[in-house]
Amino acid sequence: MGIMGHNFETVESTLFRHGMSRLGAAVNIVTTRAVDGPCGFTASAVCSVSDTPATLLACINRTNSCFPAFETARFFCVNTLAPNHEALSNLFGGKTAMTERFATGSWVEGKTGAPVLEDALVSFECELAHVVDQGTHRVLFGRVLGLSAGGNQEALLYCARRYLKVGVPS
Amino acid sequence: MGIMGHNFETVESTLFRHGMSRLGAAVNIVTTRAVDGPCGFTASAVCSVSDTPATLLACINRTNSCFPAFETARFFCVNTLAPNHEALSNLFGGKTAMTERFATGSWVEGKTGAPVLEDALVSFECELAHVVDQGTHRVLFGRVLGLSAGGNQEALLYCARRYLKVGVPS
Repeated sequence: MGIMGHNFETVESTLFRHGMSRLGAAVNIVTTRAVDGPCGFTASAVCSVSDTPATLLACINRTNSCFPAFETARFFCVNTLAPNHEALSNLFGGKTAMTERFATGSWVEGKTGAPVLEDALVSFECELAHVVDQGTHRVLFGRVLGLSAGGNQEALLYCARRYLKVGVPS
Repeated sequence: MGIMGHNFETVESTLFRHGMSRLGAAVNIVTTRAVDGPCGFTASAVCSVSDTPATLLACINRTNSCFPAFETARFFCVNTLAPNHEALSNLFGGKTAMTERFATGSWVEGKTGAPVLEDALVSFECELAHVVDQGTHRVLFGRVLGLSAGGNQEALLYCARRYLKVGVPS
């Protein structure tokens, strides 16, 4: 059907995940402060959108245990990780209870109330500006209200299902 | 103003770009077939959205010379680059005329009509499913109709304003 007479189907999810595993990305922990405490999850689906106004996006699976917190949050923080945060990345990407997650790492409360990782490679404190649901996920668009780039001089990246570290000169 | 009595402002664009330069990412050339020929630009703001249905997103500046083509395109292709495409990345990120861009590299017409880079690390042929404008950019959401992961065994990444290459085992 359609203008070209095609009848294309969307590729199967396993094939898609295999292809996407080749798309290298930074590793981030996205956080918010829920009514019952801090909440956060590991995400590689984060990218810059616009510098005017400063805007980024982060994708969250709507079945993620954090989703109810992000559904009602006004503020969130994207904390981009350094190589010394590899265990933290695994912790926030797993099934561990929220209180245990935040017991690891050096977390402080940012000006929006969202948890900020003190030694993150960079942290972006955001106000939620817009949301879009696509498939299984919600895309959170955030206006960046605060930014801190720590002293960390190496980035943690993830590509082909492996972590790697990269120098980041100041 | 607001629930917390704050009066936050969005961070300044130079600071935002500096912070974002620390967010490592894959390098991609996003293409489409316009009425007057193939069109494409280099983008790092690409990420996975959902595997069911297979969906990704790519951001384009609305002042990009390619924008009119993408504004009316039904299909587009995200070609994720390998280290041997570094010159191609610069070419598609600059001001070079479209015909000259596609004279470099090995381009074939995909099943959607969009140009596919034959030796890309992975290519995702998409049908445009949704768009969102935020700030200076448009976010293109694509359903992935075709995927090819070439024989290339290394990824080209970009972090801290430098290219780097990473092995991608099969």
